[in-house]
Amino acid sequence: MSREQRAAIDALLRRSDDFRSDTPPSVHDLRDGFAALMAQMRVAPGIRTTDTTAGGRPALLVEPDAGPRPGTILYFHGGAFALGSPQTALSLTAALVARTGIRSVSVDYRLAPEHPFPAGIDDTVAAYRSLLDAGHAPESIVFAGDSAGGGLTVTTCLRAREAGLPLPAAIVAFSPGLDATRSGASMTTKDGIDPIFTRQALVRTGQLYTAGADPHQPLLSPALYADLTGFPPMLVQVGTNELLLDDSTRVAARARDAGVDVILDVTADVPHVFQSFTGVLDEADRALDRAALFVTQHVDAAG
Amino acid sequence: MSREQRAAIDALLRRSDDFRSDTPPSVHDLRDGFAALMAQMRVAPGIRTTDTTAGGRPALLVEPDAGPRPGTILYFHGGAFALGSPQTALSLTAALVARTGIRSVSVDYRLAPEHPFPAGIDDTVAAYRSLLDAGHAPESIVFAGDSAGGGLTVTTCLRAREAGLPLPAAIVAFSPGLDATRSGASMTTKDGIDPIFTRQALVRTGQLYTAGADPHQPLLSPALYADLTGFPPMLVQVGTNELLLDDSTRVAARARDAGVDVILDVTADVPHVFQSFTGVLDEADRALDRAALFVTQHVDAAG
Repeated sequence: MSREQRAAIDALLRRSDDFRSDTPPSVHDLRDGFAALMAQMRVAPGIRTTDTTAGGRPALLVEPDAGPRPGTILYFHGGAFALGSPQTALSLTAALVARTGIRSVSVDYRLAPEHPFPAGIDDTVAAYRSLLDAGHAPESIVFAGDSAGGGLTVTTCLRAREAGLPLPAAIVAFSPGLDATRSGASMTTKDGIDPIFTRQALVRTGQLYTAGADPHQPLLSPALYADLTGFPPMLVQVGTNELLLDDSTRVAARARDAGVDVILDVTADVPHVFQSFTGVLDEADRALDRAALFVTQHVDAAG
Repeated sequence: MSREQRAAIDALLRRSDDFRSDTPPSVHDLRDGFAALMAQMRVAPGIRTTDTTAGGRPALLVEPDAGPRPGTILYFHGGAFALGSPQTALSLTAALVARTGIRSVSVDYRLAPEHPFPAGIDDTVAAYRSLLDAGHAPESIVFAGDSAGGGLTVTTCLRAREAGLPLPAAIVAFSPGLDATRSGASMTTKDGIDPIFTRQALVRTGQLYTAGADPHQPLLSPALYADLTGFPPMLVQVGTNELLLDDSTRVAARARDAGVDVILDVTADVPHVFQSFTGVLDEADRALDRAALFVTQHVDAAG
């Protein structure tokens, strides 16, 4: 059954060619298309959302309807640093909140090309700092994110550490983007297998964010250059049908070498951020269950 | 707190030098020492044990006191293929049974040097076949094991597949030994960091099992040579303070390349089969909780 589900989702995604087209759509069209796609994803029942702010940016507070547990999942949505919003990641955020009982603050960080690197990181660090300033213990906070937002879980830690802030309790990254040099072997070996991306589209969209900055630096390619020493436990989930697969495998190896607790959780034959297909793909729900256990294991209930 | 626990266990293990001594103790002494060490490990409450047989070998049935869920964890104990028994692995087996509610059959497979390779594998395959012959669906069976027994989770699948048997629902391997060539980088990089093993002791004990057989073959070095295509989902847990670390990292990469769902779950600064320290080391219990979730995710309740 589940192998059939994996194949059905692959076929579904191939019908949309926004990220695989040779003639680039406008950022405006990409944003609309991404919002429309993600609006189809199922949102777990038993949560409520409230507009809020975090570090001077809009944010979405996602809470369980009843009996919240202490802690905060600081969530960073995906979208290549140029698309998306807390709303486009709501299926993922809600899934974590519903499963853990822990609230989430999902940050509407600034996007490229209007606000290129490192604007997004500045915003997520500010959001984290605002939680600390409000009295939330770092041990009670988990960073989570998907795709570009998965990259932000790592780079926000790097910047927070530079700024002398304590690090959060844990990191959860779904199909993180962690290499702006696009040098992973999977950029070639998964070409044509990835139902969403082409190398060309990834490079093109990535340039909106890097905007001429050298990609050979930790904040743009942490899988290659970041010093992860002292990082909190990391959970990295990824599918094998991804051009970005090796962003995950390399950051996991790097974390391991730096003495960090790290789980590299690979699901075969599924696409980028397959967890979005919660309620449709069994592997999505299983992966989210594992992520939820990981979050609860690391959030200090006293936080 | 937990970092202190990790350091305390490292110091404790260094006091025992059975596996690090330059003057090899006898197999008899090693067996006694291992049994005495493992007898100190905590066994979860709420389980009961019964002597049984499986495939013509003695085995230990470990059941939850109440309300068992369908399914069987076919367990393979550790001990370098020359030591150990279902009793020495009872802390691990009981931990899985208590957490999942699923019974375990822990196989007392034949040991080297009296019974070298492939006697152990023959016995575990026979035990698996006996479960299938008794009407248990393969979807209801998980292979689990530690150290040499972690290796058996993989090689038993290889042999079962050769024999035309269906594969089990999942594999759980704690610090598996998967490379009789001892060629992993960690054999060097973790030398002196590993509080239990030296390369010399591993090679010496391994030779009791290989007994002159070529280690360059899938059943002795599956991390290097096994075709894992079609394998069930795998969970591999390992510590960074292990000479055997790269047995795990390489089999995980191999599984990923073969299109297998695989979780490589690495805990920093802990030794070989750290999960044995359940009740003493927080990371042990957290790792076992993750293993239990993985088992329940993959055991078909209809089995």
